[in-house]
Amino acid sequence: MRLGIHHVGLAVRSVEEATTFFEGVFDAQRTDYSMETGEFLSRMITVGTGLLELLEPRGKGGLIERFLDTNGEGIHHVSIVVDSLDEVLTACKKKGLRVVGNRFIHPKSAHGVLIELLDGRELR
Amino acid sequence: MRLGIHHVGLAVRSVEEATTFFEGVFDAQRTDYSMETGEFLSRMITVGTGLLELLEPRGKGGLIERFLDTNGEGIHHVSIVVDSLDEVLTACKKKGLRVVGNRFIHPKSAHGVLIELLDGRELR
Repeated sequence: MRLGIHHVGLAVRSVEEATTFFEGVFDAQRTDYSMETGEFLSRMITVGTGLLELLEPRGKGGLIERFLDTNGEGIHHVSIVVDSLDEVLTACKKKGLRVVGNRFIHPKSAHGVLIELLDGRELR
Repeated sequence: MRLGIHHVGLAVRSVEEATTFFEGVFDAQRTDYSMETGEFLSRMITVGTGLLELLEPRGKGGLIERFLDTNGEGIHHVSIVVDSLDEVLTACKKKGLRVVGNRFIHPKSAHGVLIELLDGRELR
């Protein structure tokens, strides 16, 4: 059973500054996972056995910029790894939950929490 | 090294309803940890290997009620377990970070994230 919390995603103004903060306080380590899209720059850091995804806005009016404009910096999502993404998505839709981008349960359907779903079989 | 993410805390209107949601979608399990103070009812549930703390308001104008009034339901804090709470607290204060209740780093000092610190030696 691989189900569990994979990482917690944080929306920040600067991935570099946030990395420095977690390095300084928790001896966080940079991983080699980093990704850039038109909407955000993402870097994964480890805090011991835990993973944090730092998200910095890219582009105008993108996903993370909109979040920061509304909420300021803070926790953006929780990522849960499931055995079978397809099965969970089907179950979510059957329950009438709002699924976004075929991978996220919308906060309005999940007690205010944006939940990212990761398929355990696709993780290295 | 026991450092890692211990749990993610969610502020919800009803612990029971939120438990039912996570049971239904993620086969979450109730733990025997549950606690009630003048300000909140707390229940810990497992999602596979991960832990979620569900927090429901108690009393008038308490911690969780204020959070819900401002933000609605959602992610409230991330709890990080450290080897030595004393050492981390001392380091935080030395850096000028705002520490609350001798166990929390205030969001204003931590990129908008309320961070609860747990001492690994005190955990069963």
